[in-house]
Amino acid sequence: MPDHRFPKDLPFSSAEYSRRLSLTRAAMDRAGLDALLVTDPSNMAWLTGYDGWSFYVHQGVLVFHDADPVWWGRNQDSNGALRTVWMADERVHGYDDTFVQNPTKHPMQDLAARLDDLGHKTSRLGVEMDNYYFSAAAFVALTKALSGAEIADATALVNWERGIKSAEEIGFMRRAAKISEKIIDGLLERVEPGVPKNQVVAEAQRDAIMGVGDDWGDYAAIVPLLPSGSDAAAPHLTWDGRPFQKGEATFFEISGCYRRYHAPLCRTIYLGTPTDTFRRAEAALTEGLEAGLDAARAGNRACDIANALAVPLEKAGIERGARCGYPIGLSYPPDWGERTVSLRTEDETVLQPGMTFHFMPGLWMDDWGMEITESILITENGAAEPFCDRPRKLFVKP
Amino acid sequence: MPDHRFPKDLPFSSAEYSRRLSLTRAAMDRAGLDALLVTDPSNMAWLTGYDGWSFYVHQGVLVFHDADPVWWGRNQDSNGALRTVWMADERVHGYDDTFVQNPTKHPMQDLAARLDDLGHKTSRLGVEMDNYYFSAAAFVALTKALSGAEIADATALVNWERGIKSAEEIGFMRRAAKISEKIIDGLLERVEPGVPKNQVVAEAQRDAIMGVGDDWGDYAAIVPLLPSGSDAAAPHLTWDGRPFQKGEATFFEISGCYRRYHAPLCRTIYLGTPTDTFRRAEAALTEGLEAGLDAARAGNRACDIANALAVPLEKAGIERGARCGYPIGLSYPPDWGERTVSLRTEDETVLQPGMTFHFMPGLWMDDWGMEITESILITENGAAEPFCDRPRKLFVKP
Repeated sequence: MPDHRFPKDLPFSSAEYSRRLSLTRAAMDRAGLDALLVTDPSNMAWLTGYDGWSFYVHQGVLVFHDADPVWWGRNQDSNGALRTVWMADERVHGYDDTFVQNPTKHPMQDLAARLDDLGHKTSRLGVEMDNYYFSAAAFVALTKALSGAEIADATALVNWERGIKSAEEIGFMRRAAKISEKIIDGLLERVEPGVPKNQVVAEAQRDAIMGVGDDWGDYAAIVPLLPSGSDAAAPHLTWDGRPFQKGEATFFEISGCYRRYHAPLCRTIYLGTPTDTFRRAEAALTEGLEAGLDAARAGNRACDIANALAVPLEKAGIERGARCGYPIGLSYPPDWGERTVSLRTEDETVLQPGMTFHFMPGLWMDDWGMEITESILITENGAAEPFCDRPRKLFVKP
Repeated sequence: MPDHRFPKDLPFSSAEYSRRLSLTRAAMDRAGLDALLVTDPSNMAWLTGYDGWSFYVHQGVLVFHDADPVWWGRNQDSNGALRTVWMADERVHGYDDTFVQNPTKHPMQDLAARLDDLGHKTSRLGVEMDNYYFSAAAFVALTKALSGAEIADATALVNWERGIKSAEEIGFMRRAAKISEKIIDGLLERVEPGVPKNQVVAEAQRDAIMGVGDDWGDYAAIVPLLPSGSDAAAPHLTWDGRPFQKGEATFFEISGCYRRYHAPLCRTIYLGTPTDTFRRAEAALTEGLEAGLDAARAGNRACDIANALAVPLEKAGIERGARCGYPIGLSYPPDWGERTVSLRTEDETVLQPGMTFHFMPGLWMDDWGMEITESILITENGAAEPFCDRPRKLFVKP
C-alpha cells in the first residue's frame, strides 16, 4: 500500500514542514512534554497542511518526539485529512460519527483511547487550554478518560513558534497583500453616498476571492468590518443594507488571504468634508504610524512600537486604551491574529527579522472612529517594511 | 440619562426577546441555576440582539432571574453592545484591554469580580462547557476566581430553547432561503469545464451578500464548500483556483443568510455524463429525501427521519455512517447548526411544529461524493415544508 492514496497539493515544501516540526519538538522539550495535542486549526494547518472547514467539531493533531504527527478528527473529515496532510495515510485517525454533539459521550474519550494505543497513557501531554475550539468539556473529558496522564497547559506553544516567518511564508503574505490592495482600491472606487453597504461588501468579497492574476483568493479569517459614523466607535460591527451617507466616515478593516495567509489593511473613507476632529486625528495617527514603523526594528521590543505611536496621539489628546497590533500569518476563523505578542506598553518581546504584525492603531472613540493600519515585516536592518503600498491617510470623497 | 445613548436597529420585537428570556429562565429553573453565563455568540445574539465579530476574545451574556441580562466583553466591544443589545446601557460591562491574550491574567477574573458585584459570589452558575469559545482556560480561571460559587454544566441549555422558531424567525429563514436559491441558481449557470473554482465562489459570495430585493445578505456561518471529483469524498474542503473538469461531479454546500438566520441548501453538479454509480445514488438519495420529508412530521421523532432515509440507501448498498441533519436558525461561525438534536437512529427527540432542520444526507464515499439537501420546517399537519424550491436532483451539464 502506498503511503498516500490521494494526490496532495501541499502549500509548502517538505523542508518547511520539517522546520516547523523541529521547532515544535524543541518547544515541547523545553516544556517537558512527551506529547502535544494541537486543536487550534491554524496550528494544525501550520504543522501538517490540514485544511478544511471542520473545526466546528472536535479534532486535533498529536505531536510526538519520535514519530510523525497524527491527525485525529471526525470520520468523514479523515477524507479531507487524507487529501491535505503530508503524513502517511496511516497517521490519519477518524472517530465514529455518533460522538458528534452527543451529550452521552465525548470525542475526547476516543482520543484518550488512541493515545493509549500509541503508548501515551501515562505521558505528560500538552493541551492548548486557551486556544480556539478546545472547550471546557473537552478538557474535563480528556482529563477523566486519560487519568494516568499528566495534562499540562501548552497554550500558544505552537503559536510562538510561528512568529518568525520563513521565506516561503513571507512570499504567501506578499500575495495576500496584493489582494488586500485590490480590495481597498475597489472600496475607494465604489463607496459613494446612497450606495448600500452590503452592495460594496459583495463586490469586496468578490475581489477578495477572485484574487490577483493566478493567485486565487482564499476566505479571510474575519469578514469585512465597516461601521460608519457614530457606529465606527465599535471596532467589530459588520454591515447591513443601509446606504453610505455624506458627512460620515467609514473605516474598512479587510484582509486578502492567500492559502490561509493574511495581510490585513485598514483605511477610512470620509464622504464630504472632514471635520477638524478627523483632520487632527489623521495628522496624529499618520505621525504615530510613521514613528511606530521606525521603531519596529529587529532588536527593539514590542512596547517600543506602542510607545512611539502614543507620543503624537497623546499630544493630540487621543487616548486609545487598547493594544495597537498583533502578529499575523496563517489563520482560520475567528481571528487572523496569532495571539502571542501584543503591541502594547506591557509587552517587552524582542522583535526579530521575519516577524510579521498587523500594526493596528484603530481609534474607537465615543461616537466616531478611524482606522489606518499596515501589515508589516520586521527586517534585518532598518524600519519595518509594510506589505501593502497604499497612501497612509484619510481618504476623502468630497 | 436615557436608557439608550445610541439608536438601535434590533432585528426582533421586544415581545420576541421577552419570549426568549422567559424560556431561558424557565430552563434555568429546571436546572436549578441562579445565574447563567452564555458565551456562544449565537445564544448571546438570540437573547440580547448582540451582533459583531468579537467572539475571538472572551465575552458573554449573564442571565439572571430577577434582573435584565448583562452583556460583558472587551471594553472596545462594549461600543458595539451599546449599539446592538436591547438592554439599558448600564447593563453593558466592558473589561480592560490588558486582559486580552495576556498570559499573566484572564478575562474571567474580571467576570468573577462583576458577578461578585452583582451579588452572585456564591450562586449556582451555569456555563456552556461544550459550546463555542468557552475555553478550558476560561473554565479553570472562572472556577478559581469564583471559588465560592457552584459552577454547573449548562451546555446547550439556551440552544434547546431556540429549537422551536417563532413566526418572526421563520420569516427571517424564508428570506435566507430566497438568497440560498439565488446562490444555487448562479452556480448552476456559471459552473462549466475550465472555469476556475474560486471565480465561481467569488460570484456566489457576491450573490449571497447582495441578497434579494431589499433583503441584504449577511455572512453565512460557514463558507461555501465545493469539492470536486474524488475530493467530494471530503465534506468540508473549501476551494482553490483549479478549473472545473468534465467528467467530475462537484457538490455545493451553501447558505443564504438574512440577519444571522440561515437556510442551507446543497446541490451537486455533474459536468458530462453521469456514471451509473451517480445515477443509482441519485435515485436512492432522492427517494430517501422524499421518505424523510414525509417522516418529518410533528409527533414523529428525529430518528424516524433518519430511518426513513436509510431504507432506499441501504437497498442501493450505500452506507452513510453519519447523521443526516441538525437544527438550524441563528448562527455565527464556525457552524450553522444549533447543536442539539441530531437526525440519527439514536436520537428520539419528538418533532414539534416550528422546528427547523437542515435535512442533510450527504454521501461521502471513498472517492466520490454527492449532496442534495433541504432546509425544512416541521408544520402543524403533514410532511415537512422545504424552505427552498429547487429541483431535488443531480444537476447535469452535458
